Amino acid sequence: MSRFFSEKYSSLVPYTPGEQPQDKKYVKLNTNESPFPVSQAVAKAVEAEAGKLQLYSDPECVQLRKEAAAVFGINDDEIIMTNGSDEVLNFAFMAFADEKNPLRFADITYGFYTVFAELNHIPYKEIPLREDFTIDLNDYLAVNETVVIANPNAPTGLELPLGAIEEIVKSNPDNVVIVDEAYIDFGGQSAVPLTKKYDNLLVTGTFSKSRSMAGARLGFGIGNPKLIADLNTVKYSTNPYNVNRLTAVAGIAALRDNDYYMNNCKIIQQNRARTTAELESLGFTVLPSKTNFVFAKSDKVSGEKLYLALKEKGILIRHFTKERICDYNRITIGTAEQMEIFVSAVKEIVG
Amino acid sequence: MSRFFSEKYSSLVPYTPGEQPQDKKYVKLNTNESPFPVSQAVAKAVEAEAGKLQLYSDPECVQLRKEAAAVFGINDDEIIMTNGSDEVLNFAFMAFADEKNPLRFADITYGFYTVFAELNHIPYKEIPLREDFTIDLNDYLAVNETVVIANPNAPTGLELPLGAIEEIVKSNPDNVVIVDEAYIDFGGQSAVPLTKKYDNLLVTGTFSKSRSMAGARLGFGIGNPKLIADLNTVKYSTNPYNVNRLTAVAGIAALRDNDYYMNNCKIIQQNRARTTAELESLGFTVLPSKTNFVFAKSDKVSGEKLYLALKEKGILIRHFTKERICDYNRITIGTAEQMEIFVSAVKEIVG
Repeated sequence: MSRFFSEKYSSLVPYTPGEQPQDKKYVKLNTNESPFPVSQAVAKAVEAEAGKLQLYSDPECVQLRKEAAAVFGINDDEIIMTNGSDEVLNFAFMAFADEKNPLRFADITYGFYTVFAELNHIPYKEIPLREDFTIDLNDYLAVNETVVIANPNAPTGLELPLGAIEEIVKSNPDNVVIVDEAYIDFGGQSAVPLTKKYDNLLVTGTFSKSRSMAGARLGFGIGNPKLIADLNTVKYSTNPYNVNRLTAVAGIAALRDNDYYMNNCKIIQQNRARTTAELESLGFTVLPSKTNFVFAKSDKVSGEKLYLALKEKGILIRHFTKERICDYNRITIGTAEQMEIFVSAVKEIVG
Repeated sequence: MSRFFSEKYSSLVPYTPGEQPQDKKYVKLNTNESPFPVSQAVAKAVEAEAGKLQLYSDPECVQLRKEAAAVFGINDDEIIMTNGSDEVLNFAFMAFADEKNPLRFADITYGFYTVFAELNHIPYKEIPLREDFTIDLNDYLAVNETVVIANPNAPTGLELPLGAIEEIVKSNPDNVVIVDEAYIDFGGQSAVPLTKKYDNLLVTGTFSKSRSMAGARLGFGIGNPKLIADLNTVKYSTNPYNVNRLTAVAGIAALRDNDYYMNNCKIIQQNRARTTAELESLGFTVLPSKTNFVFAKSDKVSGEKLYLALKEKGILIRHFTKERICDYNRITIGTAEQMEIFVSAVKEIVG
């Protein structure tokens, strides 16, 4: 730390992204990326756009919002596009939470929520999930706080039914409920249609997982036009050109190729079912996942040992040191071939 | 505004980017973009990377920082890469200014400084430039405040000599001095070498202007490794994957093609000299510019009238409504052909 660093931020503990080691080629099951490349149309759109890089991108993302609105069944003033969904989450925390409207989220969830809360000096409560990692709905009803729910949740993979989401939204009419749907396309039920009915619901999403665009950084927020207008006020005061030209055209092409991506999501769900069955047959406890990863533990080997043994064999999975979940690992679901390699390696280790 | 918008931000007045009208094709001299496309190597690098979009970008930007360090004559721990230079400026305001270290910058300068200050609730003083738009050095010596200087300045185009920058840095040893060098490659003298000597100097830059990458969003900050570490703490608490894969490879290729871009900058300087002479021969006052734009006014036609008359003729320039500069317009220097069209149109209007 330099001697100039503002006291406001000097105690910040940044988010730790999953490791991206460069020493050798791994079977990479640690950062919930898609194993499938973007569609041909996306690659072509990016190629064609390279000749226009000298011109600024459209800060309003007009065409991108139009295509997204068609796919998500909303109007184009009900969506904001951002540099990954981390950015829209940060904007939403800034816009809709403060001393008077503290944040409330689960103790086991996306690790960036506490970081964004600390960054923006917003008070927050981490509500313990039940022993089985499910949410106790009563913890979120009529709390008069800004609620954040990752649904399905990470790293557990568990989904809260849409009916429960609606109850939370309905019972907190004077606060925004932020539903982070980064993993919704792998079998979950989206809350996007509810944004038409409730002016206090913001749904966030990303092209990083189901649309194979982790490396392009494209996220979005969907909600009532007034919520979106507030997020735009923050965006235009922070980084108006947050979405670059290449990412914008990639996003447009991906939305037009929706079938390709949704079919990939079905393949992931099949591979997830097979991997879950294999792990269970090896004695693992595997939480029922609605995401592109599974959260699993074994009585035979600790979470850390399994992680290290797999790394030794050239397979990366995600291990967490947080006490409540250190027995578990989060394993991204890749191709059938990748999952066979993974399962064989696990067999050798626990076998 | 929604009824949920935090009081913290409800009075924000966002930055207004230059207009990007879609109604017809304009000769676009209003947002200081380069008239030259990116080099072939950049286009090829982007094409090649499209197949890897399903994987996250490198949050550390290892290769990009290495190439940049070679070009700028620094070490790779002395630079941070960001999503445009707006992002590094915002990070720097957050990290190095607060109630105890208020901001100080010119009244006529990049309009985003006040927005970032308001966004982060940092007190700031706007110091009037002299009548001729030059800086009075005494306003910045031993002020014990966080100083921000766009050098060369926008929208005036004027450069503060490097010796004066060094005096400011030297006389404020307990505060960071931020020198925004967005336009440095068009004839200015960079303060980057001084970052070796002073631990309180942060220089920011962008690939948007001289490197034809406005649409790719790539900015950077250069300074003492401890300053860079602080900026990384903010980055990893905000958006670790802020630079996407396509932009990263474009940046690497652009740095390897440095000669192409620096030659483009020379052409812009030639076109600037010619345009300045033409405008002066038409009776305009033109400030001596070290940027890829000129700031000019005429006694025969108001700034607004000229702007509107040119727009009518399909030529966009930037007009400001701020009282001190509303007689002037900012005119981006494009190709020789574009500037001929511009000058002919001006002749018709004032002639």
